[in-house]
Amino acid sequence: MEKNICVKISELLKMVKTNKPLVHHITNYVTANACANAVLAIGASPIMADDEDEVADIVSLSSALVLNIGTLNSRTIASMLKAGVKANDLGIPVVLDPVGAGATALRSTIAGRILRELKLAVIRGNMSEIKAISGLGATTKGVDVSAQDIVAAENPDYGKRIAENLASRLNCAVAITGAIDIVAGAGKTYLIANGHSMLSGITGTGCMCTSLIGAYCAVTGDYLSAATAGILTMALAGELAYERLPAEDRGAGSYRVKLLDSLFQLDGEDLLKRGRVREG
Amino acid sequence: MEKNICVKISELLKMVKTNKPLVHHITNYVTANACANAVLAIGASPIMADDEDEVADIVSLSSALVLNIGTLNSRTIASMLKAGVKANDLGIPVVLDPVGAGATALRSTIAGRILRELKLAVIRGNMSEIKAISGLGATTKGVDVSAQDIVAAENPDYGKRIAENLASRLNCAVAITGAIDIVAGAGKTYLIANGHSMLSGITGTGCMCTSLIGAYCAVTGDYLSAATAGILTMALAGELAYERLPAEDRGAGSYRVKLLDSLFQLDGEDLLKRGRVREG
Amino acid sequence: MEKNICVKISELLKMVKTNKPLVHHITNYVTANACANAVLAIGASPIMADDEDEVADIVSLSSALVLNIGTLNSRTIASMLKAGVKANDLGIPVVLDPVGAGATALRSTIAGRILRELKLAVIRGNMSEIKAISGLGATTKGVDVSAQDIVAAENPDYGKRIAENLASRLNCAVAITGAIDIVAGAGKTYLIANGHSMLSGITGTGCMCTSLIGAYCAVTGDYLSAATAGILTMALAGELAYERLPAEDRGAGSYRVKLLDSLFQLDGEDLLKRGRVREG
Repeated sequence: MEKNICVKISELLKMVKTNKPLVHHITNYVTANACANAVLAIGASPIMADDEDEVADIVSLSSALVLNIGTLNSRTIASMLKAGVKANDLGIPVVLDPVGAGATALRSTIAGRILRELKLAVIRGNMSEIKAISGLGATTKGVDVSAQDIVAAENPDYGKRIAENLASRLNCAVAITGAIDIVAGAGKTYLIANGHSMLSGITGTGCMCTSLIGAYCAVTGDYLSAATAGILTMALAGELAYERLPAEDRGAGSYRVKLLDSLFQLDGEDLLKRGRVREG
Repeated sequence: MEKNICVKISELLKMVKTNKPLVHHITNYVTANACANAVLAIGASPIMADDEDEVADIVSLSSALVLNIGTLNSRTIASMLKAGVKANDLGIPVVLDPVGAGATALRSTIAGRILRELKLAVIRGNMSEIKAISGLGATTKGVDVSAQDIVAAENPDYGKRIAENLASRLNCAVAITGAIDIVAGAGKTYLIANGHSMLSGITGTGCMCTSLIGAYCAVTGDYLSAATAGILTMALAGELAYERLPAEDRGAGSYRVKLLDSLFQLDGEDLLKRGRVREG
Repeated sequence: MEKNICVKISELLKMVKTNKPLVHHITNYVTANACANAVLAIGASPIMADDEDEVADIVSLSSALVLNIGTLNSRTIASMLKAGVKANDLGIPVVLDPVGAGATALRSTIAGRILRELKLAVIRGNMSEIKAISGLGATTKGVDVSAQDIVAAENPDYGKRIAENLASRLNCAVAITGAIDIVAGAGKTYLIANGHSMLSGITGTGCMCTSLIGAYCAVTGDYLSAATAGILTMALAGELAYERLPAEDRGAGSYRVKLLDSLFQLDGEDLLKRGRVREG
């Protein structure tokens, strides 16, 4: 296990709690509330705003911008690109969640435009989404990873290659979340062996993870660590939530509650004691 | 009690858990998260997508389409009609929740267009909504059933006639949810005597019920059974949620949590042991 | 302590539970679900509808209109103004939550238009927002109150002056929520010393408070009391939620659940026994 990265992440968490950075989201209406609460739970301050007439103003006040294409539409696509250009001008990190990329021509096209027109700090998706934006013709199943890609993800070397190629091509950090999470960037790759299967039983845990990455990017220029921090934070909260679940309450409702509690309570000691991050 | 239909429903639930069908929603932003979690809780896979440029692609990947007019607008109306036509072309079942039909001219007009232009598998609403789309000049109270219609619903014969007429006219299944739930279609009618009054104390339980019907329609061509399955699933989860509520936590917040837990935990045995469905 | 106002508020709560008034919201998609559940929890009936083609119809059915600019956009701005004009024509009270006013030119402009073009019953915001719409050049931090304004709010005399000036200028009730809540209107000012710091640790508690004010405005023409009622209801629910939290569950997830439970369970006795309202 790499303890150095966990030490680094625990410092980043402390910085988030101290600085309470504003994290601008242009995101979907299904999980916006969960993302706002996740960001608040670790101590940062979320703002969701997507009108083209104000996104440049909002991003100027913010320390990070999260673009999530979960329920993209013509109005918000224009806003995402405008906010992203402004963020790039001001050196504010931009984090992309290419929800459902590969599932429709629209999503693939828009994800492609974002990759070409914006400088990204981090991209986080599941194996199907990252393959799709890498041009590898992924099979997708809506916004969930496809069955084939779940199998593919069991071989970390395969995902590692894809993440590293995309990271190197775009000069940003690329995270593929799955049974083993992979984060590549800056010539280094981390594999994270934390998490819990119930995270995929509730909606929005992928989006929440991306929002947490946004909060961490708001306090450091080391986006590889920020991406690893967001993923480890979500994964550990997912583990702790399950452990805190009374046996008779093992259901999606109670798990959601305990997940937010765990994000709220997570501290540096949890990260150091439980983090299973290794260089891959 | 009709045990046959409960046996059938428990088989459908097993199929949902095995097939994990993708259920496309064009729905409102108030309850979208609750609907997504409900669909996930019984084992299916929700996707919310409403841009006109991608709904045909999304529906093509899906096994059912749920149209919910709770916060309809000019943009999503066009998307609903486009997605519905594509679903009809592909033989994918379309489920309509005519939220607030009768409350405004816009809702009545759009519900009417959907009825005329699309072939529906199931319509689920409260008594006011189903009366409104039947052209019976219901009095409505926003998105809730009106006081008069609550009284009317106490007479199942009255609701039965309305549901049967509409079902026969549109050749689909029609469900009226209330104290006694009524599902008519294919020359048969089921009355369901399960549920709990606290279900109306939280937002979105009607929408969630419709989404569950969508998940069941995704695994069978027998839409009368699918509609009955969705309603029975929601009603039993509502009962179990109340029973699992500690006396000191009898509030809307805890009830919501236990409701999602109960959807998650519900199994064939619950359906068989507790289902109070009879042919009416 | 002023017991008279708490007696009055307990009567208003009873009226909400008896009349179950319909409260029309044009609001943001981040907290719409929480607002709907809060309004339901105290016994009123929420409806969210924002299409320009139906907002006049919806508001005509309703007993109050809540305008919340949290995720405003060109489409909903037009709807807010149209619904507001209709509400004014019909004498239906309009409540404004100027979320993030001062943060962007768009928000300030739209809040200004609403103030000029509509007759408002109540405005509720944090210190930064109310300063901004008072033309006092507030510093804002997205949708949260700025650090300077938190300090400013520790001096109730300062906030009192601002609230009273705006209330007198617009002839409506003005509420500034913070550590001490201030409500001014009709030549009188109330200071409320209830609440809990965890209310700011979850998203939407400000929006929920405004929605509760809407529910109270729906049952009385005394908008100063209605505004005080909404704030006291939220503040007490926030206190009770914390007290009901088991020590091991002190997190944002459990707190949200207990908050909704507390809103649901709150009764006149809680208001009378715990309300710390004084004339300022």
